[in-house]
Amino acid sequence: MSEAPREIEELISLMAKLPGLGPRSARRAVLHLVKKRALLLTPLSGAMQKVAETARECVSCGNIGTTERCDICTSEKRAIGEICVVEDVADLWAMERARVFRGRYHVLGGTLSALDAIGPEDLGIPKLVNRLKDESVTEVILALNATIDGQTTAHYIADELEGRGIKVTSLAQGVPVGGELDYLDDGTISAALRARKSL
Amino acid sequence: MSEAPREIEELISLMAKLPGLGPRSARRAVLHLVKKRALLLTPLSGAMQKVAETARECVSCGNIGTTERCDICTSEKRAIGEICVVEDVADLWAMERARVFRGRYHVLGGTLSALDAIGPEDLGIPKLVNRLKDESVTEVILALNATIDGQTTAHYIADELEGRGIKVTSLAQGVPVGGELDYLDDGTISAALRARKSL
Repeated sequence: MSEAPREIEELISLMAKLPGLGPRSARRAVLHLVKKRALLLTPLSGAMQKVAETARECVSCGNIGTTERCDICTSEKRAIGEICVVEDVADLWAMERARVFRGRYHVLGGTLSALDAIGPEDLGIPKLVNRLKDESVTEVILALNATIDGQTTAHYIADELEGRGIKVTSLAQGVPVGGELDYLDDGTISAALRARKSL
Repeated sequence: MSEAPREIEELISLMAKLPGLGPRSARRAVLHLVKKRALLLTPLSGAMQKVAETARECVSCGNIGTTERCDICTSEKRAIGEICVVEDVADLWAMERARVFRGRYHVLGGTLSALDAIGPEDLGIPKLVNRLKDESVTEVILALNATIDGQTTAHYIADELEGRGIKVTSLAQGVPVGGELDYLDDGTISAALRARKSL
């Protein structure tokens, strides 16, 4: 399809690689950008360049920041006794939005997978174990996704941490806030029933 | 939400202004970009800057190109007797993808709207009338969307062109190729029936 100039076709094909955008919506987005050149296209190009230059992984937790160690790792307000293990930076951000966890994080960057040949080293699990030795950690909270891969990884980490005198916990499973039983899957309902609490 | 560094939050808020992306999918797209910095983020920033610098509206038809007059307007292979009037550059691209029209275009950039105070001048309709005088045009094809606004605009243009000895046509309405009657709206079916053809 060569109906647009080469420069624009190139931009469309790059935009189409973004998650959530296909060829058609990338085309629409690029037309919108060309129309809003001063308001959106130029600032967006600049913002991308700035992120490309400054963004980096935190050496201790794997969060994305602009410094060697991220704001959370260096914050004095954060409890150093608790480490929350998440699969991805997006999950770390989701936890932060909830504004309830005040410790620090460890980002795995994925889950264990025999099929994709992703082992404990690829996820920085030995690095996590080292952190526990060096830092005075008392609790590791496994906040992995409630998927089979996530739970397999959680069990592997729990096994690795056994016998080190560290409390290993995981997020509770149950009915989401605002959730209607009628729309929940069987697995969630049975998990919620098994974990029932006395009022 | 300030869980990410300022530079990244800025990029997310700009990305969220693209059509088809909301705050959540913009966040996901930006995380993807940060992970694929060399492969995607840097090239995308560069491609945007290049488009910001080079893209411009064709002075005669309103198409987006990189030169004063676009490739279609300057092409010698294009019939100069036919002008296809479209609402938007996206519609021009859609027509070009069909590879059946070999004339030139006129992009209105919208439709007439009393509510939004968009009059004939805003759509370059006088400019279109002038083009017809200067260029030896024999047919104007109105390829406007089959919406109320599109059809109102089509009728206005048809009225303007009356008595100038120019043939004014519009795209046929009917059953789309591959369309199943059961899934078509009543309007399309009655339009197709009224425009029925003998085999």
